[in-house]
Amino acid sequence: MNAPDLGLPVDVPSTALFTDQYEFTMLQAALKAGTADRRSVFEVFTRRLPEGRRYGVVCGTGRVLDAVENFRFDADVLGFLRDRKIVDEPTLRWLASYRFSGDIWGYPEGEVYFPGSPILRVEGSFAECVLLETVILSILNHDSAIAAAASRMSAAAGGRPLIEMGARRTHELSAVASARAAYVGGFSTTSDLAAGFRYGIPTVGTSAHAFTLLHDSERDAFRAQVDSLGRGTTLLVDTYDVAEAVRTAVEIAGPELGAVRIDSGDLLLVAHRVRQQLDELGATDTRIVVTSDLDEYAIASLAAAPVDAYGVGTQLVTGSGHPTCSMVYKLVARAQSADVKAPLQPVAKKSLGAKSSVGGRKWAARRSDAYGIAEAEVIGTGAVPTGLADRQLLVELVKGGTVVAREPLDTARERHIDALAALPMSASQLSRGEPVIPTEYV
Amino acid sequence: MNAPDLGLPVDVPSTALFTDQYEFTMLQAALKAGTADRRSVFEVFTRRLPEGRRYGVVCGTGRVLDAVENFRFDADVLGFLRDRKIVDEPTLRWLASYRFSGDIWGYPEGEVYFPGSPILRVEGSFAECVLLETVILSILNHDSAIAAAASRMSAAAGGRPLIEMGARRTHELSAVASARAAYVGGFSTTSDLAAGFRYGIPTVGTSAHAFTLLHDSERDAFRAQVDSLGRGTTLLVDTYDVAEAVRTAVEIAGPELGAVRIDSGDLLLVAHRVRQQLDELGATDTRIVVTSDLDEYAIASLAAAPVDAYGVGTQLVTGSGHPTCSMVYKLVARAQSADVKAPLQPVAKKSLGAKSSVGGRKWAARRSDAYGIAEAEVIGTGAVPTGLADRQLLVELVKGGTVVAREPLDTARERHIDALAALPMSASQLSRGEPVIPTEYV
Repeated sequence: MNAPDLGLPVDVPSTALFTDQYEFTMLQAALKAGTADRRSVFEVFTRRLPEGRRYGVVCGTGRVLDAVENFRFDADVLGFLRDRKIVDEPTLRWLASYRFSGDIWGYPEGEVYFPGSPILRVEGSFAECVLLETVILSILNHDSAIAAAASRMSAAAGGRPLIEMGARRTHELSAVASARAAYVGGFSTTSDLAAGFRYGIPTVGTSAHAFTLLHDSERDAFRAQVDSLGRGTTLLVDTYDVAEAVRTAVEIAGPELGAVRIDSGDLLLVAHRVRQQLDELGATDTRIVVTSDLDEYAIASLAAAPVDAYGVGTQLVTGSGHPTCSMVYKLVARAQSADVKAPLQPVAKKSLGAKSSVGGRKWAARRSDAYGIAEAEVIGTGAVPTGLADRQLLVELVKGGTVVAREPLDTARERHIDALAALPMSASQLSRGEPVIPTEYV
Repeated sequence: MNAPDLGLPVDVPSTALFTDQYEFTMLQAALKAGTADRRSVFEVFTRRLPEGRRYGVVCGTGRVLDAVENFRFDADVLGFLRDRKIVDEPTLRWLASYRFSGDIWGYPEGEVYFPGSPILRVEGSFAECVLLETVILSILNHDSAIAAAASRMSAAAGGRPLIEMGARRTHELSAVASARAAYVGGFSTTSDLAAGFRYGIPTVGTSAHAFTLLHDSERDAFRAQVDSLGRGTTLLVDTYDVAEAVRTAVEIAGPELGAVRIDSGDLLLVAHRVRQQLDELGATDTRIVVTSDLDEYAIASLAAAPVDAYGVGTQLVTGSGHPTCSMVYKLVARAQSADVKAPLQPVAKKSLGAKSSVGGRKWAARRSDAYGIAEAEVIGTGAVPTGLADRQLLVELVKGGTVVAREPLDTARERHIDALAALPMSASQLSRGEPVIPTEYV
């Protein structure tokens, strides 16, 4: 596959070093002990949702598939591992031919999840699976955190479009993944060109205060912008005096002016005044875009304001208070050998309570009531009860090392809408609460 | 320069798309209006520190220099901008030969900063400077947030080494930059191999619970690890019963056992018990490493515990509650033309108070008392007062488009230690407070 599929706007030869050193030292020790090829099952799950959140959003699955496919060791990488004495020669030889050859099942991207949900299940030899831990968690923990914030903001916006514009507030490549996650979570567009380049997400943007300040007057700036970008552009009206700027804007662009943007002040108050002024000036179709430290609560507070679109930056890319999920990647079962017929034995950490987990290879299903509304996340390790067989959540993503479940990003976006619609209505309340459905182990 | 200098473990042809679309539309409009070549000064600063923080840490400067040097437009990028109709043909022609040709001054990496500090000053034509806004802010906002958290954790650790191990809790490339920022802020090592590959930061890591669970017994696992990694390795002792694990560990490795790691439970209590047990077993040189959701407060609370090293993940890569800074990139002065003799006119947004800024091209100096301890961050736009001339903070980074201030990462790390040492002692208090020195405008 082509390197740009890694989600970067750049060529990337490998994801193999996005990895904690201990994955490699465990590999070395297991190779020497003869346990490296034991058939193993690892699962990704979280013990809890971020405090007060009612559901989580699975995001990054598509990026995980790219990362797994590109996890390989070229001469540069092997040279580094050798020079730094991170692993020994037998391990380097093993790594040189590494390709993941196992199976991955998981919640499809855009699906919601709850505490304990087995979001991803990776099966193969211990050696080939353990190496993937860090990069899989990096992607899922980051992207799911952003998508969860985006989903809440989308609910708060109630159908008005949301623009992702947080690139400047996070790492430049985190920004690209954030724009992708925001789109899955319901945002319409992004300001980030790399995200447009890589994922085809619609991009938007017109001007900043610097453009007004560059010119000798606001009037000059507006004229320059309209001359170049057309009357349908968005003029930024809060550099000096908002009322004067709106008057100038409509004078120059006429009632065909696309939109005005307000980036500071009391947005509720200012939006009302600007709407009234635009209407009085005959610019009744000119839209109002607001962008100023918005989060889901600020968006909700503007529900009754004459606002046509929201631009969200910092709070989106920082997960609105929860910049990471607490997903872990745990060995839950393993056999005594590589033999596919050797029985899988459930395993789990037992010490010091708080971090214990449930052993065994799991299935998950979402039980619904008579109206099709979810009432429980059901997780088990044995046979799937008949009534839940067609409600199972995990789908096949990788089979014998081959990715079998690529899909367009819009599919994940639509899946998220459907998944939310099937939750109890209280899921989209912004107030803090418990997970909207309980997790049941059977 | 070589592409890997972008701070990625990968080849990257360009940073030009790590950019908000409006930078490009402003460029197009300014080119058409004939204002694009007006000599301009942009400054990066923050209006405030994160709530309660007493100082900020400048980090990412080295990455900014790489990003500026690699900001260019190849056929793929230009084709994308054309196909998506983001800018017009004259703008595309202008971009095709883009190279930053201006000057950049800034606070050197590792230096501390305060509200208003002009952390970076970018001078050149409006066109060439405006394009750099997004990527410069992405890097500085991210890296400085992580370095600030690292600096506080280092103060709390009081000389005990800190291991960065947060890769799994943040975007895979954000993780690489985080390891770099943590090192600048005082961490000793990282688990992230990509950070070791790219920046030469020492990497560490031995094993996880999965390794113990893979084996038929904890004893088998410890033996496998010691056989392969040697007696100096770190054994993870909290998979089943800690006391039994410590006994087994010393039985297998002997008193030469390098360290034990505790990753759950009441670390204060468990560390004391484990230390006592190790000593009773004769393993008096075996170190204790703790790693479990640590932040600067948890680290401080372990000051009296027999702990030899801390591993920090989530709280480091999320900036310990402040995952981004609020740095902005503002046009503060510009001339009427490209003429270097044309006078610079200060400019500033004036509307709606909260986001207003101070116009004019600024200098900054840190005034000290008779003992060499900082007492104020002094910022001005006129001549530098005689007494402050040799206390100036901005250094030349880029001259006429050429980077003139590359330095090893260790230089930034050492500079940070020196900068902290010259602040009042209350700087390193963990409790919330005001910036440790005031900002004065003269």
